[in-house]
Amino acid sequence: MTPPGGGTAGRAAADREAVLAVNTALYESLERGDADALTDVWLSGADADDTGGVVCVHPGWPMLRGRATVLRSYMLIMANTDYIQFFLTDVEVELSGDVALVTCTENILSSGEAEEEGELAPLVGGKVVASNLFRRTADGWRLWSHHGSPVLTSVDEDEDD
Amino acid sequence: MTPPGGGTAGRAAADREAVLAVNTALYESLERGDADALTDVWLSGADADDTGGVVCVHPGWPMLRGRATVLRSYMLIMANTDYIQFFLTDVEVELSGDVALVTCTENILSSGEAEEEGELAPLVGGKVVASNLFRRTADGWRLWSHHGSPVLTSVDEDEDD
Repeated sequence: MTPPGGGTAGRAAADREAVLAVNTALYESLERGDADALTDVWLSGADADDTGGVVCVHPGWPMLRGRATVLRSYMLIMANTDYIQFFLTDVEVELSGDVALVTCTENILSSGEAEEEGELAPLVGGKVVASNLFRRTADGWRLWSHHGSPVLTSVDEDEDD
Repeated sequence: MTPPGGGTAGRAAADREAVLAVNTALYESLERGDADALTDVWLSGADADDTGGVVCVHPGWPMLRGRATVLRSYMLIMANTDYIQFFLTDVEVELSGDVALVTCTENILSSGEAEEEGELAPLVGGKVVASNLFRRTADGWRLWSHHGSPVLTSVDEDEDD
């Protein structure tokens, strides 16, 4: 329960910026296939343990629990992805104390499977909605939970209040 | 950052129980088609506003933002669902200050479409993984975000560390 006030607004703006930077780091690490950068983004050590650990849902996957399991899944994805690029839209940050929720749409461009060996793989597009939950730690904001899901319907997204 | 200690452990256990009760209320309200009970579960008023509002992803849907939009989507789902039952498995609660994350698998049994008018509709099953994020308010824990996604792969869920 954060009290309203000028100083608080300034702190919230700084928090928001810091959270967005880590959110960006998540996607950039995947684009570069940078396992070190990716593991830095996720909660670790005591910070991960005292919440029962991190959780992650890749689009269409069951829930993965625990830092080792989650990181292993990313290594598998990275090993099987030649090229991937994320265009994030509709990015929103919501803060509640030492927790931040970033929601966004991941517009994904990645390399598909080549029809024949030696041929150039085609680029395929996909749309995923993501909820990325961060916690404030002594080392800055770290990812506590990622939940990504495929957008399969054609519900009008702009039909908001 | 909650300090460790005996009293804290007792409080955490009480919090956990209270959060699980609201999580159960969410699914029971959907099973009963009880719009009043459902709306009570979600953050409202100033609690919803000061985080930028609630967010919700139904399986395969784009992200819905704002209490009015989210509740409208549930009314639509309820109006089009004759029968639905949720068997929750793999339920875990993680607490971080005034925020709680409940993750679970929703094993869903619902009525499908009857092949011919007047016929009994068949029951269809589905599996969804959900991240339900709650915030502590003066009125108890309330749902801040729901993200449900279809499980489409056959990744071994038990392959944990």
